[in-house]
Amino acid sequence: MVDFSIQLEKIAQAVGILQEQNVDAWMTFVRETEHNADPALPLVSPSNVTWHTALIITKQGYKVAIAGRYEVVNFQRMGIWDEVISYDQSIQPALLEVLNRLKPRQIAVNYSESDTAADGLSHGMYLTLQRYLAGTSFEMISAEDILNPLRGRKTPGEIARIRAAVALTDDIINRITAYLKPGQTELEIANFIHAEYKKEGVIPSWDPGHCPSVTCGPDSPVGHVSPSSTFVAKAGQLVRIDQGVILNDYISDIQRVWYLQPPGESDIPQPILHAFDSVRAAIMAAAAVLKPGVEGWVVDDAARKTIVAAGYPEYQHAVGHMIGRTVHDGATLLGPRWERYGRTPYGIVEAGNCFTLELGVQIPVYGLVSLEEDVLVTETGVEWLGHVQTEVIVVPTAS
Amino acid sequence: MVDFSIQLEKIAQAVGILQEQNVDAWMTFVRETEHNADPALPLVSPSNVTWHTALIITKQGYKVAIAGRYEVVNFQRMGIWDEVISYDQSIQPALLEVLNRLKPRQIAVNYSESDTAADGLSHGMYLTLQRYLAGTSFEMISAEDILNPLRGRKTPGEIARIRAAVALTDDIINRITAYLKPGQTELEIANFIHAEYKKEGVIPSWDPGHCPSVTCGPDSPVGHVSPSSTFVAKAGQLVRIDQGVILNDYISDIQRVWYLQPPGESDIPQPILHAFDSVRAAIMAAAAVLKPGVEGWVVDDAARKTIVAAGYPEYQHAVGHMIGRTVHDGATLLGPRWERYGRTPYGIVEAGNCFTLELGVQIPVYGLVSLEEDVLVTETGVEWLGHVQTEVIVVPTAS
Repeated sequence: MVDFSIQLEKIAQAVGILQEQNVDAWMTFVRETEHNADPALPLVSPSNVTWHTALIITKQGYKVAIAGRYEVVNFQRMGIWDEVISYDQSIQPALLEVLNRLKPRQIAVNYSESDTAADGLSHGMYLTLQRYLAGTSFEMISAEDILNPLRGRKTPGEIARIRAAVALTDDIINRITAYLKPGQTELEIANFIHAEYKKEGVIPSWDPGHCPSVTCGPDSPVGHVSPSSTFVAKAGQLVRIDQGVILNDYISDIQRVWYLQPPGESDIPQPILHAFDSVRAAIMAAAAVLKPGVEGWVVDDAARKTIVAAGYPEYQHAVGHMIGRTVHDGATLLGPRWERYGRTPYGIVEAGNCFTLELGVQIPVYGLVSLEEDVLVTETGVEWLGHVQTEVIVVPTAS
Repeated sequence: MVDFSIQLEKIAQAVGILQEQNVDAWMTFVRETEHNADPALPLVSPSNVTWHTALIITKQGYKVAIAGRYEVVNFQRMGIWDEVISYDQSIQPALLEVLNRLKPRQIAVNYSESDTAADGLSHGMYLTLQRYLAGTSFEMISAEDILNPLRGRKTPGEIARIRAAVALTDDIINRITAYLKPGQTELEIANFIHAEYKKEGVIPSWDPGHCPSVTCGPDSPVGHVSPSSTFVAKAGQLVRIDQGVILNDYISDIQRVWYLQPPGESDIPQPILHAFDSVRAAIMAAAAVLKPGVEGWVVDDAARKTIVAAGYPEYQHAVGHMIGRTVHDGATLLGPRWERYGRTPYGIVEAGNCFTLELGVQIPVYGLVSLEEDVLVTETGVEWLGHVQTEVIVVPTAS
């Protein structure tokens, strides 16, 4: 049986947010969500839909699902919708009937230039809505201000699931430590991790082609890149792995760095230690300012200044993104005020937000020192969701 | 290593279609495709992207990928892009530079009211493009007429993969026949099928929550519904299963019907035989008119008239949809001319199209008789991609 406990939590939360924002109605309008996914749909529906489907929630807490004949049962089974309306040839008559009856002044729909998680309405579907509503007085507005808090304020059920995904990832990190050896290619290491995921019945947090992302030594390209057979773990160099799992629909996203210590060496080379401590300091600086009420960019700025002051170049991304159902869970970004991030760095951090904190520096000879931790924002600050990497993990190598 | 053989085939095909349609350039413009997927992206990129990414292909066959710093390597590795341009803070300057240099009159972008597979551009991303291109003379048009044939004309590589998915599904159908017994709930049967998928290392063609869709007896609701523990396979009744697998990124989609024969009974009850033969006749009628040059609705009409003439109600869906990377692969629909299908039933069938042919009737006492076959359109007609169900599969039951 499909579990919709999370959807019940999120729908109740949505009503409260509509009241807060004083918006009359929020509508998720979708079709063929297997390949035209709306990231907002899983918050209110436990399954995908094929035909045009409208899920309407009002400020008064009234809930209407309009769906094709073969899909209404999934909504009826949820037991939460005040009306579940079925149609065959066109959704338009039922949709207009419901809206004319509920008379919302504004209808918030899922589009946003800034927040990708609030931008699930396709342009074609927007044109369809415009056509359906031509001649009516309903005002279509962006649901960004509904979806941002709805997605960002994790419910107890959501936090429990994220914790479980992080705990499993921590465990897999220990298995990687036991496995790593000089001579392994990035691809072999990635395959080992995929096999562990398979054993646990989970899938990678993002594209299996580059989750895990494995970086061996100083020459491997950094980024969302597929592991290759070209680069190999070597004694005297670093291995950096960025990975996470989807467990029960919620994800983890963690980076760790290992040093393959050559035989006879008992210290970690100074450049590695300096880089590690600087990256760690930047993450701690971000954590220190991360609390309810601050704007996202302020958190990024704290980390960015710390790493630059330590003599390293700026990282070319955000220090943190939300995690939840997806690895980049939209809403507020802990990132710089760059054009491509739109309004997201100006979002206000709230209690219940779950973020990653991540950055790295590339050092000659050794490779990439990059860390990523998952945190929950509480009323007073930050709670680390898993084990935190406080020193380079040393893997002794045989001669 | 990521396999991009299909993408190379599709990109070459896209250039030919741009010439056919006399459109200067086609641009796929995406970000965060883990949760804001554009169904067109996998045709030209073997992996998801996070930052704003523009993939531009011109009628002259010139190909430019503009992507964020951490994602350019995936495009460089494809070896097919004439330029791979990296950016950090905003894609706008590079995008404008490229467009001003290439000077396309029209830029086809991925939106469509009718064809969901051509509607991957979100409304927020459309607004971003409008903002970027303000004051320029480029005309943004719908890429529907590019994506429809690009998606619909399967390449040899694509057809081989669909065949493999169908062959595996045929094999799993045999395993289901050996497994079925009275007393099993729909959920148990679905779990058995999921276990077989897992053994084969494949995942369901659509939402695991309702792929397979299992219908036991006459009272179980029909549609895209999750299997429940409420309904049970019974001697003297039918089991109908709709399922498919994703193998190597390509899918199958097949429905079969089984009769659980009570001990001592040697014939199949007449109402079942009549329903089966009528459904089969309707599918054959559709197959008989399915060839290059016909409009989609004509194929649906042949099946619809046949089943109505046999004394059954009309089915409330299309008789056939394309299959490929996804189970509803967009483009031409073999469906009735209903509002919700937009222009898709008016699409012209072409050689290389792969469709399902499916319909069913519900009969009292026994249950659902519903079949679905996967076919390839050839120059002269139809090639069945797998075994075809020509009679009810009988499962003898013990007393």
